[in-house]
Amino acid sequence: MAILKYIREKWQHLLHNEQLKHKIYVIIFESDTPAGKLFDVALIWFIVLSILVVIVESIQGWAAIIGPYLRVSEYIFTFFFTVEYVLRLYCSPHPRKYALSFFGVVDLLATLPLYIGWFFGAARYLLVIRTFRLIRVFRIFKLFNFLDEGQLLLRSLANSSRKIIVFFLFVLILVISIGTLMYMIEGQQPDTSFNNIPNSIYWAIVTMTTVGYGDITPETPLGRFLSAVVMLIGYTIIAVPTGIVSASMMREHRRREIMKCPHCGKDGHEEGAAYCKYCGGKLDK
Amino acid sequence: MAILKYIREKWQHLLHNEQLKHKIYVIIFESDTPAGKLFDVALIWFIVLSILVVIVESIQGWAAIIGPYLRVSEYIFTFFFTVEYVLRLYCSPHPRKYALSFFGVVDLLATLPLYIGWFFGAARYLLVIRTFRLIRVFRIFKLFNFLDEGQLLLRSLANSSRKIIVFFLFVLILVISIGTLMYMIEGQQPDTSFNNIPNSIYWAIVTMTTVGYGDITPETPLGRFLSAVVMLIGYTIIAVPTGIVSASMMREHRRREIMKCPHCGKDGHEEGAAYCKYCGGKLDK
Amino acid sequence: MAILKYIREKWQHLLHNEQLKHKIYVIIFESDTPAGKLFDVALIWFIVLSILVVIVESIQGWAAIIGPYLRVSEYIFTFFFTVEYVLRLYCSPHPRKYALSFFGVVDLLATLPLYIGWFFGAARYLLVIRTFRLIRVFRIFKLFNFLDEGQLLLRSLANSSRKIIVFFLFVLILVISIGTLMYMIEGQQPDTSFNNIPNSIYWAIVTMTTVGYGDITPETPLGRFLSAVVMLIGYTIIAVPTGIVSASMMREHRRREIMKCPHCGKDGHEEGAAYCKYCGGKLDK
Amino acid sequence: MAILKYIREKWQHLLHNEQLKHKIYVIIFESDTPAGKLFDVALIWFIVLSILVVIVESIQGWAAIIGPYLRVSEYIFTFFFTVEYVLRLYCSPHPRKYALSFFGVVDLLATLPLYIGWFFGAARYLLVIRTFRLIRVFRIFKLFNFLDEGQLLLRSLANSSRKIIVFFLFVLILVISIGTLMYMIEGQQPDTSFNNIPNSIYWAIVTMTTVGYGDITPETPLGRFLSAVVMLIGYTIIAVPTGIVSASMMREHRRREIMKCPHCGKDGHEEGAAYCKYCGGKLDK
Repeated sequence: MAILKYIREKWQHLLHNEQLKHKIYVIIFESDTPAGKLFDVALIWFIVLSILVVIVESIQGWAAIIGPYLRVSEYIFTFFFTVEYVLRLYCSPHPRKYALSFFGVVDLLATLPLYIGWFFGAARYLLVIRTFRLIRVFRIFKLFNFLDEGQLLLRSLANSSRKIIVFFLFVLILVISIGTLMYMIEGQQPDTSFNNIPNSIYWAIVTMTTVGYGDITPETPLGRFLSAVVMLIGYTIIAVPTGIVSASMMREHRRREIMKCPHCGKDGHEEGAAYCKYCGGKLDK
Repeated sequence: MAILKYIREKWQHLLHNEQLKHKIYVIIFESDTPAGKLFDVALIWFIVLSILVVIVESIQGWAAIIGPYLRVSEYIFTFFFTVEYVLRLYCSPHPRKYALSFFGVVDLLATLPLYIGWFFGAARYLLVIRTFRLIRVFRIFKLFNFLDEGQLLLRSLANSSRKIIVFFLFVLILVISIGTLMYMIEGQQPDTSFNNIPNSIYWAIVTMTTVGYGDITPETPLGRFLSAVVMLIGYTIIAVPTGIVSASMMREHRRREIMKCPHCGKDGHEEGAAYCKYCGGKLDK
Repeated sequence: MAILKYIREKWQHLLHNEQLKHKIYVIIFESDTPAGKLFDVALIWFIVLSILVVIVESIQGWAAIIGPYLRVSEYIFTFFFTVEYVLRLYCSPHPRKYALSFFGVVDLLATLPLYIGWFFGAARYLLVIRTFRLIRVFRIFKLFNFLDEGQLLLRSLANSSRKIIVFFLFVLILVISIGTLMYMIEGQQPDTSFNNIPNSIYWAIVTMTTVGYGDITPETPLGRFLSAVVMLIGYTIIAVPTGIVSASMMREHRRREIMKCPHCGKDGHEEGAAYCKYCGGKLDK
Repeated sequence: MAILKYIREKWQHLLHNEQLKHKIYVIIFESDTPAGKLFDVALIWFIVLSILVVIVESIQGWAAIIGPYLRVSEYIFTFFFTVEYVLRLYCSPHPRKYALSFFGVVDLLATLPLYIGWFFGAARYLLVIRTFRLIRVFRIFKLFNFLDEGQLLLRSLANSSRKIIVFFLFVLILVISIGTLMYMIEGQQPDTSFNNIPNSIYWAIVTMTTVGYGDITPETPLGRFLSAVVMLIGYTIIAVPTGIVSASMMREHRRREIMKCPHCGKDGHEEGAAYCKYCGGKLDK
């Protein structure tokens, strides 16, 4: 009784230990301290290795040979990621928000399979477990946070996202109408792959993006003529996103050149910066 | 007799009721009033839903299951689009011009199938009706009107349309001569797919646009060599439309930057604007 | 005897009638006079129609049905192009140079088949005649002369031709080494399509240009890994020609903007022009 | 005994004959002297010819016919490249570094097959010899050194290499997660080609780079929908490397324009040049 009360007290204490929370928060979410850096590096390695394990596991021949090693690695990874998940929940100022976020759900689902196996027996829920295990791969998106220039790249894409979305709607309208037209033309052929409109739209996308699998191809002269037109359209409008992104990147470059420090000449200052981050001189802006 | 005269009089009155015509015109063609906005939103939804129905109908397995729901939705859509068609004809200042325009013909043909079924019996004209029903999908082009930036994009393409047409003629000349050359080389092979010049031209387009279905591929060493050359040509001249559109977009951007308001600093003013649409200050231009 | 002498004299006279030569020269090579314009339009139509005839002839089913019409059209085309060939030879200041040029050879070979048939009997030399007839298609390149902006486009490509050639050599080196590497990896497989280095190089080109026919695909894991690398290389270096051409076009645009007439504001002046071709004002340059 | 001592002395003398070393060094590594230019031209020809021989040898039918000629050419090439290898080792200031470099290893391995055949009998080590012979093709990379503008092109790529690497990591993350998702969706199908994650990743790369072999294609509606999304993503983000390289090339061009000589107007000066290389005038920089 007393021991339960003791645990409960400790638990309450831990739950409200803001100092400890802050310490862990700094380690997990920031990378300025040596401990934070170490955690980041360990996290990257654990993610990369656990993804490699999932990939290797999927190869039928290999799984049999290196199965035992994989099982050991699974214990290690599950332990590490369980601790990480609990700590994140613990030190996050908005634990509920984290738990319901994309990474919160992925982290939870990806650590579950081992526990499910323990409690309910692995054999029964094999398919569910297998799928849950695959979910781990989506932890890979966490690596985006470690790509500094990648975020610049994403911001460059985000800057022109409105235009890209409009372009996609534009392509969608084209693709639906072309797909239907092709269904009208080729749909009457016996044994055709254009047997319904969704398949025809799929074909139109395959063709217009110049992927060209060749799993669905027109047979009639009219169908071939239309598909030649579609290819030429796709070949030309591929220029549109390129133009959008190129123009956006060029402007970014020019903006950065303008933000060259007048004292030391270095550029690459963040937007809104007032002082040079290299020599401390005032930026013209 | 009297009743017929009464109807006729009303009809004449309606036909020349300019005030009513103007009211409906504002609702259908403009979107500044609440009613006009409501009409626009309803139109978008009805178009999107009716297209989804056409697409779903084309899937053999599904049509059987959700057939009854589709039939009900067909009555609703036909009613809505019939009313829309009649109102457009009624309030348009040039009804004949509308009736003969692309959308006028599509609107008419797309509402017909149900009525044909009623008057003549659906079974007889099944194929015609089916094709007419598919025509509905082309209403999707109406959605272009609601994409503000899409029109900017189209204008950007239209600005360089002369160059793009020249580029297409250029590609056409290349593709015809390459197709003929390939027909000379591969046309003698037994069981070849290069069995006539149109097919060879189709192959040349598939190859030069880097689509590469693989339904027609060269077999002889010389044919493979030529097709490698064609690929490299296609790989290089894809740069031309990209260059055209990129350059056009960049100039548009620069032009817009120049049109920055000297009072509030905002840009994005329409071409020919004399006053800033944000602060009312005079634009330099 | 006297008649022969008479013909000979007339012939000599004709051969040295510089005034007539000049008149025909103006009609054929220039398009400022009404006769010259008429000749150009007739030439374009005759070329387009004769190419259409060659294309239609190659379709097995059709040739039987519309054969008689094709035969008649053949007489007309052969007559027209024979006259054109003779006149060109006659009025050209360097007839030998024309006769040995690309178009001179094409014009000669393309008019021959009918005459060969007359003199030697068509049945014997069927294959030769068929091939000669196909040569007509290459007259299509004459149409380039009528595409004003096309020449601008070609000049833009020619401006960066050195860089594009270097890029091609670069791609050639990559493709030969990748093809050999792939031959090492996949060449030992039974029934592989990588059965010699030229085929492997062909595969490398198909892959790097993102055409991707799928007629030759890797089977081994290592082969698939290498081909994934090749695809990513191709996906990235496609940016190089685009960058070259884009940059070249942008400079051309800027140069043309600079050459804006200071009097009337119009641009588009030829390189080296000193006076505005619209208002006659002096250009800054 | 005396003769051995004599050879040894001569050898020692040769090994430390710095003057001779320098002479050979100038011939091999520089191309300003006539002898150096001759060596360069001979090297280019020998490399190109030896590569052609390797390519021709791989064609089963041809090897039998022109085998004797190939054997003779092999003696000549092996002699030339052996001498080249020894001279390079001899005159290089850091022979060990050369021997362990990429070209050092390729040069050694590529000259070995003939000697192995002599000492051990060709029949036994046929496969090894065949592979070694193929290694010769990688000498092709030496040709890069002779492409002046190619190095400019490489530098332009290298300038934006950081961004391109980030882009590749970005693509890698996308491709791994998409491959896994596709394995979840299509992996349960019987006889599917998505039978493990590496194959699914291979498919994702084939699709996203718009290569589209068609050796692995989705069968389920959901799989087709996902692959359509992947194609559209690939179609859009192909713009990113293009934008990166275009922007980099444009800046290079602008930088070079700025470096125009104020005296003679010519541009194209090397970075850091202080005087015009055409007229000797001082550059503004």
